Amino acid sequence: MTKTDTATPGLAYLETRRLEVDALLDKYLPAESVYPRRLHQAMRYSVLAGGKRIRPILMITAYEAFGGTASDIIEPAACAVEMIHTYSLIHDDLPCMDDDELRRGLPTLHVKFDEACAVLAGDALHDLAFELLAHSGSARAVAELARAIGTAGMIGGQFADVAAEGKQVTLDEITYIHAHKTGALIRACLRIGAILANVDEQTLERLTQYGEKIGFAFQIIDDILDVEGDQKELGKKIGSDCKNLKATYPGTVGLEQSRTDAERIIEEAVAISREFDLKDNYFEQIARFIGWRKK
Amino acid sequence: MTKTDTATPGLAYLETRRLEVDALLDKYLPAESVYPRRLHQAMRYSVLAGGKRIRPILMITAYEAFGGTASDIIEPAACAVEMIHTYSLIHDDLPCMDDDELRRGLPTLHVKFDEACAVLAGDALHDLAFELLAHSGSARAVAELARAIGTAGMIGGQFADVAAEGKQVTLDEITYIHAHKTGALIRACLRIGAILANVDEQTLERLTQYGEKIGFAFQIIDDILDVEGDQKELGKKIGSDCKNLKATYPGTVGLEQSRTDAERIIEEAVAISREFDLKDNYFEQIARFIGWRKK
Repeated sequence: MTKTDTATPGLAYLETRRLEVDALLDKYLPAESVYPRRLHQAMRYSVLAGGKRIRPILMITAYEAFGGTASDIIEPAACAVEMIHTYSLIHDDLPCMDDDELRRGLPTLHVKFDEACAVLAGDALHDLAFELLAHSGSARAVAELARAIGTAGMIGGQFADVAAEGKQVTLDEITYIHAHKTGALIRACLRIGAILANVDEQTLERLTQYGEKIGFAFQIIDDILDVEGDQKELGKKIGSDCKNLKATYPGTVGLEQSRTDAERIIEEAVAISREFDLKDNYFEQIARFIGWRKK
Repeated sequence: MTKTDTATPGLAYLETRRLEVDALLDKYLPAESVYPRRLHQAMRYSVLAGGKRIRPILMITAYEAFGGTASDIIEPAACAVEMIHTYSLIHDDLPCMDDDELRRGLPTLHVKFDEACAVLAGDALHDLAFELLAHSGSARAVAELARAIGTAGMIGGQFADVAAEGKQVTLDEITYIHAHKTGALIRACLRIGAILANVDEQTLERLTQYGEKIGFAFQIIDDILDVEGDQKELGKKIGSDCKNLKATYPGTVGLEQSRTDAERIIEEAVAISREFDLKDNYFEQIARFIGWRKK
């Protein structure tokens, strides 16, 4: 880790947690030696290809911040949301959807294996996520996740995103897409962590607002990075969103306004996190990391 | 209903229940007027295209047989398993999988809508199923469903089925495919119904064995019908399993042996159902219907 990196807000915390999550994913994914082997290989290939693990980290952070201590509950639950995230990427990358061939610097699953395998591995991760979350014993947590990623959430956002391809979209439309495609799951991660820790409803409500803000900022910055980035740094084909004329925030309000909006939203999220009066405010660190991140 | 039909074992019971389930599915599916409309239209198109509704009927039958009375618990749970069944058909029909263009006499979803829509509608039904089942408040029921349709169950069977295409398969392999691709969900429907009714573990175990038998017989008869049937009666392209050289039971042991085996298994299932000493033994009627069915 370079000197600059240690000065990055939240990076030390996120890096430690990321390594923990990587180990948990390895533990909760079926082994490659278990039948059907090729399907399990495919699932592991996609989930273990790397990533910031921001969703499980948000869940663990919320769980612990509000007093949760049972690792056998939070560990499978945290893996569940990363599996959901990966399943959504696998299906989004399919030829009939975004048709992407590269993800995190590696061939996408349907390129590396085949298309049938990619459909089924995505389905299997979607499914395993619910099995793992059900281990918590909380049907409320299950309902929370299912709602967040259904047609009123993530899938709805993805559908609107595909439908918007090649069209000029309004700020309202792009806000809808972001809030659903990315925001709903990020928000749900925080809520599920807090629900599993039996938080009171008022705190849950404020945490939800924090989650909506960081989720929105996260996607705006994703869009900014997609415009600014280069292939090497991001590990995916640059400007692929531009190529397909996909709906983006900077494409609608411009780069400068996008940056200003993201910064303001991050400050609002930080302000909410301070209300919780925590000994270690990791929510602030995560919010600042999202505002800072370069990839 | 013709005179012959009324003499068919279990048909009156199954027909009454089927109409109830159809109405419930219409109720629990998002309306076409709700955004994203086209996605909801696609989900409704596939789920409401018809079908025997044998899975939800099995669940309702088990729930009521063992004393369950809460319609707000069993209704969404029953719809959940039919949505799972439909999601699996939608994804199985995709060009990269079985590449079927006809299902229940209608164009398959990717033909009627488009492929992206079919992937997402399948995902959305998969997801909605867990949301509906979570309404029961039983995390155990959720875990039961997730396990039954994951890589150790339905998806594992589907993967093995796709992998077996064009190859000569052994009886062990075909038994594995059937037990997982079809059997696991049928078994789970009965178990979840009984679990939601708080049945004792010993009864649950016997019900599981009943479920395994009717699930196996169901698939053998499906294979027999596929060999014998004609396009009009089945509403799908005849011999499509043959065309793709898919693994079938009669293809392995022959038609005659297949019929004998199915009859024997049905009788074993009926024998178990009589142990429950129920006032109305609908389990027997369902088993006999499965043994008798012509489509």
